Amino acid sequence: MFQELVHAKAFQNYLEKAHFPQAPQYLYDPIRYILSLSGKRIRPLLVLMGAELFDKSVVEQALPASAAIEFFHNFSLIHDDIMDVAPLRRGKPTVHQKWNDNVAILSGDALLIKAYQELAKCPTEKIPSLLHLFNVTSLQVCEGQQYDMDFEMRTQVSEPEYIDMIRLKTSVLLGCALQMGAIIAGADERSQTLLYDFGVNLGIAFQLQDDILDVYGNPKSFGKQVGGDILSNKKTILFIKLQELISLTDQEELDCLLRQSVDVEPKKVEKMMNLYAKYDIQTLAIYQKEKFTTIAYEKLTEIQVEAGQKEALFSLANALMHRVR
Amino acid sequence: MFQELVHAKAFQNYLEKAHFPQAPQYLYDPIRYILSLSGKRIRPLLVLMGAELFDKSVVEQALPASAAIEFFHNFSLIHDDIMDVAPLRRGKPTVHQKWNDNVAILSGDALLIKAYQELAKCPTEKIPSLLHLFNVTSLQVCEGQQYDMDFEMRTQVSEPEYIDMIRLKTSVLLGCALQMGAIIAGADERSQTLLYDFGVNLGIAFQLQDDILDVYGNPKSFGKQVGGDILSNKKTILFIKLQELISLTDQEELDCLLRQSVDVEPKKVEKMMNLYAKYDIQTLAIYQKEKFTTIAYEKLTEIQVEAGQKEALFSLANALMHRVR
Repeated sequence: MFQELVHAKAFQNYLEKAHFPQAPQYLYDPIRYILSLSGKRIRPLLVLMGAELFDKSVVEQALPASAAIEFFHNFSLIHDDIMDVAPLRRGKPTVHQKWNDNVAILSGDALLIKAYQELAKCPTEKIPSLLHLFNVTSLQVCEGQQYDMDFEMRTQVSEPEYIDMIRLKTSVLLGCALQMGAIIAGADERSQTLLYDFGVNLGIAFQLQDDILDVYGNPKSFGKQVGGDILSNKKTILFIKLQELISLTDQEELDCLLRQSVDVEPKKVEKMMNLYAKYDIQTLAIYQKEKFTTIAYEKLTEIQVEAGQKEALFSLANALMHRVR
Repeated sequence: MFQELVHAKAFQNYLEKAHFPQAPQYLYDPIRYILSLSGKRIRPLLVLMGAELFDKSVVEQALPASAAIEFFHNFSLIHDDIMDVAPLRRGKPTVHQKWNDNVAILSGDALLIKAYQELAKCPTEKIPSLLHLFNVTSLQVCEGQQYDMDFEMRTQVSEPEYIDMIRLKTSVLLGCALQMGAIIAGADERSQTLLYDFGVNLGIAFQLQDDILDVYGNPKSFGKQVGGDILSNKKTILFIKLQELISLTDQEELDCLLRQSVDVEPKKVEKMMNLYAKYDIQTLAIYQKEKFTTIAYEKLTEIQVEAGQKEALFSLANALMHRVR
């Protein structure tokens, strides 16, 4: 993982040189704040690794594109947090919580524009195709967020609908990050598409794993409250699978559980886990996760570059998919 | 004005062919809605006229750029209306009013991205410079909106601060629209800058005129309630000029008036107008408006194209500046 650390450092340096004016402070302070919360910086890393896969000499040229992806991601966090009325992000107050909704709306807007400003710094001849990909992806992310909010209002969501929602909301951006790197490195279109598909499928697998870990993760190593999704009645892959398979009698118990908060029913998580166990939901969900992981690996395998050059991406994928948190 | 009608029709046709998907409906219905409210469509017209000034044959090529400007403008209306808690826009319910804040945030985001998608349809070799200009301008518009909100919280705003705020919030987009047309027509940089400056100065003059008409406009032809700015204690050019010049004794009367709503003081508008008259504020404001109008005309005059070709822009400027509403 040595090379990843080099990339992470290069990205961090680039970010520190990024210029955000002092005034108006309510526009730019929130941007500095959200970027300082940092997170895992997986997305910009993917841009650099996507470039490196095809041409080690262009990694530096890919830094503005990696910043574009990170800025976009953080813009979407600021606005999603308003919509979800989330008080915390990465353990710190969200922007709308620390300031207010108006500040969060406008600073989010500015950060989205800043993402495009980074795109404009990419190698000139690559800008049209980068812009096209970035636009399509950004719009898909908005669509995914809308579907996510729509699904909260519905009682029934099918598995294909759910998979499509997480694909749009979170996975296409990973594919886009990798493909942007590939575009900058001058990869051919087939290779670009394979790398994109690797990212998207890995992203879906990662999200499914997140759903699984929420219930079956080790409480000590999983960063969040175990069973949090159950307590908030979230429509995860586990929940959707259960709804698909549940008998009429168990459906009554499920409906009852969904109406009860943990104050009324302290065993809510335990009872839901019993239902999951009865229908072997964990196995089914793991099967789905593995399916997308396998597709991802196949796509990466198909790319026509020397096997050794793919090592970094394979090991990143391994690290993400066998993670304990 | 015949040519303007041709442009308006071309733009309308282009817009009608613009594809917004049916689903997710809460993302795209609000976009269709805000665009259907239409407004005056001055900004897209400026793009087409900016192109026509230098090369009549490229007007059609400028249609995507004109859509980008119009989409951006409507994005900013959706988000500004949330921040200003505005119930009406062009006489119809605002997006956040008709749906809700979340729908308005996300559909606004999508419309901003749609603006960039139109940019990506511009002639490929022009995209990098169009993107650069569009980014700088968009960010300035956000800064202007932030300053506008900041000023509401302050008791004192200087005239240069106010002029700079309206320049950022509304005028740079007019300059940008014109310059984008000029870029597409392949105008040289000096001509581009002159045309940009024409737009920005005209925009400032137009905004100052708006402040003046709010108080001194003909109630029959002015589209809004006369004195609306006075009733809402808005910091207009008139108000700022008055604050600059007012005596200590009159300041007491002003402070008192500002604290009183129209229910408590039915003569609020009349009394404020008396103060404006005492310090000849209308004349001073008109002088400022004329100053920026003159600069605008000078910039347009300086552009090295055949005088006849500038006629359309001069008459549009005349129409805007001698308007009764």
